[in-house]
Amino acid sequence: MSDTKDPTAIFMPSGKRGQVPAGTSVLDAARQLGVDLDSVCGGRGICSKCQVTPSYGSFSKHGLTVEPDALSEWNAVEARYAEKRGLLKSRRLGCQAKILRDVVIDVPEESQVHRQVVRKRAEARQIVLDPATRLYYVEVDQPDMHEPSGDLDRLERALAEQWGLLHVKGDLRTVQMLQPALRRGNWAVTCAVYHGDSLGEARIMHVWPGFYEGGIYGIAIDLGSTTIAGHLCDLATGEVLASSGLMNPQIRFGEDLMSRVSYSMMNPGGAAEMTRVVREAINMLISQAAAEARIAPELIFEAVIVANPVMHHLLLGIDPVELGQAPFALATAASMVLWATEIDLKMHSDARIYILPCIAGHVGADAAAVALSEAPNQSDDLVLVVDVGTNAEILLGDRNGVLACSSPTGPAFEGAQISAGQRAAPGAIEHVEIDPDTREPRFKVIGCDLWSDEPGFAAATRQTGITGICGSGIIEVIAEMRMAGLLDPSGLIGGAEATGSARCVADGRTHAYLLHEPADGRGRRVMVTQGDVRAIQLAKSALYAGARLLMDQLGVDTVDRVVLAGAFGAHISPKHAMVLGMIPDCDIAKVTSAGNAAGTGARIALLNSAARREVETLVTRIHKVETAIEPRFQEHFVAANAIPHATDPFPLLRQAVPLPDVSFGASNRGGEPRRRRRG
Amino acid sequence: MSDTKDPTAIFMPSGKRGQVPAGTSVLDAARQLGVDLDSVCGGRGICSKCQVTPSYGSFSKHGLTVEPDALSEWNAVEARYAEKRGLLKSRRLGCQAKILRDVVIDVPEESQVHRQVVRKRAEARQIVLDPATRLYYVEVDQPDMHEPSGDLDRLERALAEQWGLLHVKGDLRTVQMLQPALRRGNWAVTCAVYHGDSLGEARIMHVWPGFYEGGIYGIAIDLGSTTIAGHLCDLATGEVLASSGLMNPQIRFGEDLMSRVSYSMMNPGGAAEMTRVVREAINMLISQAAAEARIAPELIFEAVIVANPVMHHLLLGIDPVELGQAPFALATAASMVLWATEIDLKMHSDARIYILPCIAGHVGADAAAVALSEAPNQSDDLVLVVDVGTNAEILLGDRNGVLACSSPTGPAFEGAQISAGQRAAPGAIEHVEIDPDTREPRFKVIGCDLWSDEPGFAAATRQTGITGICGSGIIEVIAEMRMAGLLDPSGLIGGAEATGSARCVADGRTHAYLLHEPADGRGRRVMVTQGDVRAIQLAKSALYAGARLLMDQLGVDTVDRVVLAGAFGAHISPKHAMVLGMIPDCDIAKVTSAGNAAGTGARIALLNSAARREVETLVTRIHKVETAIEPRFQEHFVAANAIPHATDPFPLLRQAVPLPDVSFGASNRGGEPRRRRRG
Repeated sequence: MSDTKDPTAIFMPSGKRGQVPAGTSVLDAARQLGVDLDSVCGGRGICSKCQVTPSYGSFSKHGLTVEPDALSEWNAVEARYAEKRGLLKSRRLGCQAKILRDVVIDVPEESQVHRQVVRKRAEARQIVLDPATRLYYVEVDQPDMHEPSGDLDRLERALAEQWGLLHVKGDLRTVQMLQPALRRGNWAVTCAVYHGDSLGEARIMHVWPGFYEGGIYGIAIDLGSTTIAGHLCDLATGEVLASSGLMNPQIRFGEDLMSRVSYSMMNPGGAAEMTRVVREAINMLISQAAAEARIAPELIFEAVIVANPVMHHLLLGIDPVELGQAPFALATAASMVLWATEIDLKMHSDARIYILPCIAGHVGADAAAVALSEAPNQSDDLVLVVDVGTNAEILLGDRNGVLACSSPTGPAFEGAQISAGQRAAPGAIEHVEIDPDTREPRFKVIGCDLWSDEPGFAAATRQTGITGICGSGIIEVIAEMRMAGLLDPSGLIGGAEATGSARCVADGRTHAYLLHEPADGRGRRVMVTQGDVRAIQLAKSALYAGARLLMDQLGVDTVDRVVLAGAFGAHISPKHAMVLGMIPDCDIAKVTSAGNAAGTGARIALLNSAARREVETLVTRIHKVETAIEPRFQEHFVAANAIPHATDPFPLLRQAVPLPDVSFGASNRGGEPRRRRRG
Repeated sequence: MSDTKDPTAIFMPSGKRGQVPAGTSVLDAARQLGVDLDSVCGGRGICSKCQVTPSYGSFSKHGLTVEPDALSEWNAVEARYAEKRGLLKSRRLGCQAKILRDVVIDVPEESQVHRQVVRKRAEARQIVLDPATRLYYVEVDQPDMHEPSGDLDRLERALAEQWGLLHVKGDLRTVQMLQPALRRGNWAVTCAVYHGDSLGEARIMHVWPGFYEGGIYGIAIDLGSTTIAGHLCDLATGEVLASSGLMNPQIRFGEDLMSRVSYSMMNPGGAAEMTRVVREAINMLISQAAAEARIAPELIFEAVIVANPVMHHLLLGIDPVELGQAPFALATAASMVLWATEIDLKMHSDARIYILPCIAGHVGADAAAVALSEAPNQSDDLVLVVDVGTNAEILLGDRNGVLACSSPTGPAFEGAQISAGQRAAPGAIEHVEIDPDTREPRFKVIGCDLWSDEPGFAAATRQTGITGICGSGIIEVIAEMRMAGLLDPSGLIGGAEATGSARCVADGRTHAYLLHEPADGRGRRVMVTQGDVRAIQLAKSALYAGARLLMDQLGVDTVDRVVLAGAFGAHISPKHAMVLGMIPDCDIAKVTSAGNAAGTGARIALLNSAARREVETLVTRIHKVETAIEPRFQEHFVAANAIPHATDPFPLLRQAVPLPDVSFGASNRGGEPRRRRRG
């Protein structure tokens, strides 16, 4: 029995509607109707987070007309706010404007608490902003000696009464900073409250006097074997303010994970030393990112870290030795919430670290993050997700189930173990084309948009030089060499006589392809040696074998789509990956890049606390296949060694690149390609 | 419809009885019937905590006869246990002995989980052992690479399955130590689990390989303004293994609390410096106690700390400045659970500190602990509890309600500000008698059972000497001086002419009483000066005024009983306290000493985690009266300055000590005693 005289409020874009007593503020109406409208100051006209845009005129669809006097007049608080900080003419402060007559109110994206964070890829799952740490402005009762209670007790009561936050507790540091803050802020403070602790308890992490106008930040960290990458985000907007990366300094203890495990086994204190250096590197990353974003590291309240199991253990100060031998037992597979101080990270002194769960001894929190980002478990078609790094983590599945494995590709895909290899940085060759007739190459280097045979290239690259070849470049050049007939299916580089190219030069007992000879003596000669081809063959065989193993398990011969992930996966050309036989058969139009999906998964978990619960459930439902003890993995690995482009398994490619088979008499060491099943 | 053929088991002393299927172990039967029978190993014949004593013969009261074959035969596990560690003939291991026929089983005190910890005083509440930290032995599944899970995950599952412990979480340190412990212990470990975290979550604090045979310990600390006392307890038995004490090193920043608050206000960084030294002192106390008990400090898993508000704040690193001025706002009044590392305490690295709640800005966690120990809220008669220390905390009430206040007595009662004063230590005069006829004194010193006029006293005290007078001694000597006519009601010491005693010597413009003159030149001359009497008068007036204020509030003129608490309260002679007018009228037989009740309250909270919830509720129900702003407190204070023994308000005392009034002409500065209301 609603009073028909009460005005109707309709909120857009949600379409939520209802009647409210005349004089209700827009913010209160939004709360009553369950509309997502932000507020930090609790409706006191301070924070301006509750800005809305009223619409006027006739809304026949909703059956109502909004008169110009539907809302109360622009008031003094709004006028002051407009004068001091600016307020668009069309905007109102939701806590000040009162609903007098029927009204349609638009809640702009930036006034929604749970707004979507922009992701570039159309097919990617969107990130809904819902961080674990949020700001609350409260007015706290003054102490009364006749009703004695502590400052913290009164603050907790204020949070419960003014924000409905129950079970909010202060830490010792909160208590220490609260006393002066309350008095400086004249009994009003802004609190950063962390909601991510277990069992629904929330923690006060920081207290500022009065209304705090600054930001609070979080950092999503992808701790890889070779590189460490971090995205510093504004927790209130989801915006990425800085992205930093650096080499994992543990490389000096071993390039791949198993060498680091060995280092730990052979050197007493080795694990502790590796723990120390990786924590130091993360601190450097944090301080780099904070400097880039021009914020104090003490304003970083949360970090989310994803890592493979060995890095996960080394970061946590756990000896990784058990991960080097069957049954590859993790010390813990569950997600963890730590204080930053527990792992010596330098950010806010009460900052919390969320570490994603691991899937298994060889499939870590990084794979869990990829699963969170790419959501194969929500896919209608069968998707193969390959996270290409020093290890490849492979996920295969759809909404009926997801399988996972890890494959030891080694660091060749990242430019390591390659004669002219280097990490992706300005000056590195990242794209290569070889003319099938002349066998002459052209290439592009990072930091320059021109091809090497275009005018101005030399000038444009004078600054950086041409310093080597990065992971994506090495894949392209080897695929191109195969397509140009410089390489036989076994991976053997032909000599100048066999290939008709003077760039195929003798190099000991084998040959090498001269990709770049510096004309002016500046920079480096870039060769592709037989050893480089072998390294890539091993890596791609491992990758392919892992994917095949999962496909066997699922009883399928093809997948519907392939997602290439990994910082490096972002730059791989799908065509070249297929020519090389890195990934199984698939319509090439269905091969996409997800960029650094592990890093994105970390960012999702940073910005949306529900995603943490989601990934914790998800990992328990992913079925792990152990490559290390599966004989079929070895079979697939051996069989995948060849570069079988000549057998032409890709109908689409055949149209695009109609090349003759090439053979120059070398033995086919990789054996006959076994992927003819489609023929 | 129980099977009448099932044997009946009766457990004593609880009297719990029930039928169990023949072949049920005594331990299982106890669990089914809700009998309190301990076990750490979960019934695996390892821990021997479940020892029981079967009774045989006819039990007409219970209507059954126990045959010699009521239990299964002594088995190999019991034989091995008896051989290795000893097992009384009459005893059985509850997990091994199976019930075959009707049986009566006695559960000895030491096999009960919730056994009572012995307290000496008959009237004291008993402590039921139920510590927050307990040991659990579990067998953990080995890792299986086909069902990957972390070591911690499997441990948590084992604790749930084998002990019904849900929501048990491991810390990072647990994870770090678990991996080697599981392997060394052949997939069995003993865990120390802490149940005291909020919202029912439990935390694994330590993991030992296999069955851990050692103990786990806790320490109850009474952090006073002048002294810090600690009781180190075995958490499994409740036994006090060591009691240590030391001076609070903050004394150098100010003897009483308000001087320390001033120090903090006058000296930037002063509060931090005081925090540092008190934490250092507690660490010294912990290491002293651990050394005395011959245990490693790392085996101390819990500490409970009680303190007055200023010490509470300084310990926590909170500036006490707000406690020095109205409205005396505490930074937090609630209880706190901290990690030892948060306040730099050196014990187990995961140890938890429980800090009792405060009642108000002047009535702290120490008063809460006294309330917990003395339970005035459970008293049928009206009890006045006085915790005498540098500040006096005063509680007055019964089961209908409890009032509290704090009174600034200063440190005179502890021997400070007294010319020959010292803390209670060997060599200090602690008891004094003055012959009313000769006015000659005799005394006892700490560390010697003889009176000073008994043969052998000189020899017995040669070692310690006679070094000064402690708090209880100064009270006794002043009361005795008054009774012997050496002091008038205003507190003035008479000269030799007025008193007829050559011991009343001139001392500047006033007189002093020569209590002890070393005969052999060894040791110290001990005088009671006019300044000493004045200091004690101020202190006792403050104490009395506080008690009176609470009595006014309750509208009573007398109390039913008085409990003197405080390390020093333990040594005060009730008779002398009454002569001095420290405490209000009361039947002297109803004045008892509770010893260090604050320390006992800390020990209760250490050994019984339910007591923590109890005191948290209790403090919210105690009504605080603020002496600092109550004009009647000043009135009572001024009125109480006299030493009105001569007015003879104590009928019982009159019989015991029939002394004439004495006056030597000095003015009665304290005014006419106003406590004649009984007359």
